[in-house]
Amino acid sequence: MDDTTFAVLGTGGIGRRTLDVARHKDGLTPVAACDRNGVAIDHQGLDVDELLDATEGNIASGPDEASGDTPATPTSDYASDGGAAAAEGATAGGGVKQAGEGAGIVASEQGEPTDAPIDDVIAESDAIDAVLLALPNLEHDFIPRIAERFADASYEGVLVDVLKRSRVIGMLDDREEALVESGITFVCGAGATPGFLTGAAALAAQSFVEVEEVKIWWGVGLKSGYEDNRGTVREDIAHLDGYDVETAREMSEGEIEALVDEHDGVLEFRDMEHADDVLLERAGICDAEDVTVGGVLDVRSDEKPTTTTVRVTGRTFDGERGTNAFELDDATSMEANVNGPALGYLKAAVLRNRAGDYGVYGPAEIMPSF
Amino acid sequence: MDDTTFAVLGTGGIGRRTLDVARHKDGLTPVAACDRNGVAIDHQGLDVDELLDATEGNIASGPDEASGDTPATPTSDYASDGGAAAAEGATAGGGVKQAGEGAGIVASEQGEPTDAPIDDVIAESDAIDAVLLALPNLEHDFIPRIAERFADASYEGVLVDVLKRSRVIGMLDDREEALVESGITFVCGAGATPGFLTGAAALAAQSFVEVEEVKIWWGVGLKSGYEDNRGTVREDIAHLDGYDVETAREMSEGEIEALVDEHDGVLEFRDMEHADDVLLERAGICDAEDVTVGGVLDVRSDEKPTTTTVRVTGRTFDGERGTNAFELDDATSMEANVNGPALGYLKAAVLRNRAGDYGVYGPAEIMPSF
Repeated sequence: MDDTTFAVLGTGGIGRRTLDVARHKDGLTPVAACDRNGVAIDHQGLDVDELLDATEGNIASGPDEASGDTPATPTSDYASDGGAAAAEGATAGGGVKQAGEGAGIVASEQGEPTDAPIDDVIAESDAIDAVLLALPNLEHDFIPRIAERFADASYEGVLVDVLKRSRVIGMLDDREEALVESGITFVCGAGATPGFLTGAAALAAQSFVEVEEVKIWWGVGLKSGYEDNRGTVREDIAHLDGYDVETAREMSEGEIEALVDEHDGVLEFRDMEHADDVLLERAGICDAEDVTVGGVLDVRSDEKPTTTTVRVTGRTFDGERGTNAFELDDATSMEANVNGPALGYLKAAVLRNRAGDYGVYGPAEIMPSF
Repeated sequence: MDDTTFAVLGTGGIGRRTLDVARHKDGLTPVAACDRNGVAIDHQGLDVDELLDATEGNIASGPDEASGDTPATPTSDYASDGGAAAAEGATAGGGVKQAGEGAGIVASEQGEPTDAPIDDVIAESDAIDAVLLALPNLEHDFIPRIAERFADASYEGVLVDVLKRSRVIGMLDDREEALVESGITFVCGAGATPGFLTGAAALAAQSFVEVEEVKIWWGVGLKSGYEDNRGTVREDIAHLDGYDVETAREMSEGEIEALVDEHDGVLEFRDMEHADDVLLERAGICDAEDVTVGGVLDVRSDEKPTTTTVRVTGRTFDGERGTNAFELDDATSMEANVNGPALGYLKAAVLRNRAGDYGVYGPAEIMPSF
């Protein structure tokens, strides 16, 4: 496979770590990165060391002027891992927030100030194989509308997000015709979950001709990241018994703290509404209703309160029933489990794109097709 | 993805089960099958029910007249699973052996007698996306020479084998130029192991930027299949302390029985020489020397004597060390774990082929590229 050039939209937590992790991977060349204030483009490959050093703790956030959107409450990127949030309102950004003209990517010697960072990347996209959308979470249709802008510019290549909002998938589907016409292969939810864990489910399903049940169970320890993730914790609360999205949204900070105290900082979630089910059904692994997602979030420890596992139960062609299991070591951080898979799916999607497979895909569809 | 048409060369155990399992999969249409005496071709799709019924317990074996090769001792296909054999001399065939003019595929109303079954399939290969090579194991270079014949005919498509002989990979590599020129994507070792288990290792490696160790450990229970697998058991003996390929080859049946008795029917293998290591290195997952393969074979029980597991230890980008694990349920038979993955990799390889990626690949290379 040839070298893959890619851009990162957004240089918050996930964007920065994507650039960081890509240094360890073969065949991946970052050629563009942008945040709300600036853009850095070098088709020979960005100097990632310089870019990360220059922007450390200096992340531009706030309204994305290029898009004209108003940001939701910035939370953090753990939403992309472990299933810790239904993820409406969670952001792919994170990190230390700074504002002002000198903030973010323009602090790098590779960065140029701009009023239209995304348009600037789109203008150069002929030479970009793939674009990772690591943008702060704004409105529900923010990512789909970004995709639309690439399609309007007749971009032929890969777009990848690391979110997990079921709702976004439908919105992308609504735009599939335009994506296909442009030649875009869009992979949604390519982080830890749904990404990594539905991929594991697709693999584990290989023993079976019929999958009866997929159980995804995650653990996230969030002590040091708690302050940055209050918004996501709020959304997770919507999954607790007796709560829903509306009631969780209306709670005061004090009420949330009281609830967290009541649970000694450990929140357990069962039967979460999560994109994993939709994506596994799309990949032909099983029916969405056969997928259950749950997990435990501990906001008072960085240790995972439970081990992240994927268990796939099915029937073999010779009539046996069994359960294959995939288990992540507790020592693997949510960040590690987001960024490695995201880049893996990105590279795999480039192959799909070159094969002429355009449209909207879930991560499990990018696996060997069963 | 469009429908994938495929052919099966060989209708022994793996070939028949491939046709069987394909009935449960979407988007796979078997259009050709052959054995040494006959060929069945229908570009609209074979009637698999009829074909399997007509040939049940009626498998043509013996020298493949089309190839002019002399077969090695026929053993059985468990060699393709669980790592139970280094697999020199193991066959992909198996099942009840019969000979004579009416044996095998010609007993089906779809079968036609032929002196050159493989050439007959090659003649129709313009309309065949992929070919699964489920041929009895003959000489070491038998499969590579079949590949060569497809290349000579300018076949553009996918060839898949389910063997695991390190040696064969090198022989295919030697022919890679011709394969690439023809437009062939060859996936070698796409059964349970290396196929399924190296794929699991590639997935489990996604948390890490550096993989330090991959441990593959398999269990196979072979009571009812023992008689058909004596040849493979002989080869496994070569992996025991104090034995090698030559000494194992020279043992009499009585000596082997005595050895099996001495171990109460349970043979444990450590540090097997196995293609998994080479294939994981090719896929960029780790160095070959960091891969260990072992397992336990019980010839007196059909229960697996130990659970098949893949353990991948690595270092995350944020400096942690962890071990991710993949575990197959003991109830999943070796056959289930060969044929599901083989068809999965076959479909994935068709995408590679359409993307213009020709040459020789291991299964882990067909996974999302990390």
